[in-house]
Amino acid sequence: MREVFQQELTEVRERLVTIAELVAVSIENATIAFNTSDVNLAEQVIAEDDRIDELALSLDELAINILARQQPVARDLRIVVSALRISASLERMGDMSSHIAQLARYRFPEKVVPKGLRGTFAEMGRLDVSMAKKLVELLRTEDLQIAEVIRNEDDNVDDLHLKVFDKVLGETWKGGAVDTVDATLASRYHERFADHAVSIAKKVQSLATGDWVVASA
Amino acid sequence: MREVFQQELTEVRERLVTIAELVAVSIENATIAFNTSDVNLAEQVIAEDDRIDELALSLDELAINILARQQPVARDLRIVVSALRISASLERMGDMSSHIAQLARYRFPEKVVPKGLRGTFAEMGRLDVSMAKKLVELLRTEDLQIAEVIRNEDDNVDDLHLKVFDKVLGETWKGGAVDTVDATLASRYHERFADHAVSIAKKVQSLATGDWVVASA
Repeated sequence: MREVFQQELTEVRERLVTIAELVAVSIENATIAFNTSDVNLAEQVIAEDDRIDELALSLDELAINILARQQPVARDLRIVVSALRISASLERMGDMSSHIAQLARYRFPEKVVPKGLRGTFAEMGRLDVSMAKKLVELLRTEDLQIAEVIRNEDDNVDDLHLKVFDKVLGETWKGGAVDTVDATLASRYHERFADHAVSIAKKVQSLATGDWVVASA
Repeated sequence: MREVFQQELTEVRERLVTIAELVAVSIENATIAFNTSDVNLAEQVIAEDDRIDELALSLDELAINILARQQPVARDLRIVVSALRISASLERMGDMSSHIAQLARYRFPEKVVPKGLRGTFAEMGRLDVSMAKKLVELLRTEDLQIAEVIRNEDDNVDDLHLKVFDKVLGETWKGGAVDTVDATLASRYHERFADHAVSIAKKVQSLATGDWVVASA
């Protein structure tokens, strides 16, 4: 019974890695679509979000089945409950990729990234992609140093998020309302994507350290 | 043991109702602060969000303890797992109230609601408050008709959300970038608040009907 359970925990972790990989692809494509106004790639990101949703749902069902059949306690129970939460965060990260792609699609054939913010959004996108790829490695290896790097990258995303508002609300801003709306929403989606990555990194950290209270924060 | 377990499930439900009540107060005060530029009330909403976070965290710990000690299966297990998810949604609803209050605080002593959108935001706020109050009743009574009303109100919130963008991107919009940013973020926060309410309503519905797949969607 115990061996079966360990196999099932391995299955849970592998499925989380698979979903995280799809999320990494989705944010990479979403940020390319966004920064280059590639409407076909945007459509692809939006379509493929269904797959992330399905896999997250299926993982939730597996986790609940494990709870019912294996009745885990202590750390094992925390792992399964954390898997449910990590799955929810990954699903939302896929939604953020899809939202970023939708912005590119709405404005096509116009460019969605407002002038004066190209560099900022390119850098925000680069950080989101980097965090998503590191998340795959973190889930695969549970190397907690990666969790620290993810948290540091999120600080940089937050700085860029504030920079977008400084720009949009500054004296030199020449954008119209469309540019302002696009910049505001895009920045928010990039920032939320990074927040979810940090939330997952914290859960992996607290599973490793046994510091449960921080885990749920 | 069984009786203790039923008492614990009752405790979980009562705590969800308590958190939902605090969320209803927070969105009511947040929308008043937002619509009337009441900076003191905004500060209060922001400060009281910590209480919602603490109670949600404490409920999560109780739910995980119940899983460990009582080893529930079938519907009982679904109830405890759903409680974890409902608690996460309530916590995010509190965050949205806080974000709405923060917008009012940032712009003070200026008005945060842009001209031409006062009626729209008053109505969005009214709907969010109504949904939050209905959620309290739904969690207390499990009367599924309330879940349907919540879903209908969300459709109205979505319509108003689109209306905000129509206005901001329309020919007659005279607002500056600050007004556009405020309108965009405020509309998004109101809409997300309503989404979380629907997500909780769906979970209560699917617990009642046993339609688990829809439950996690």
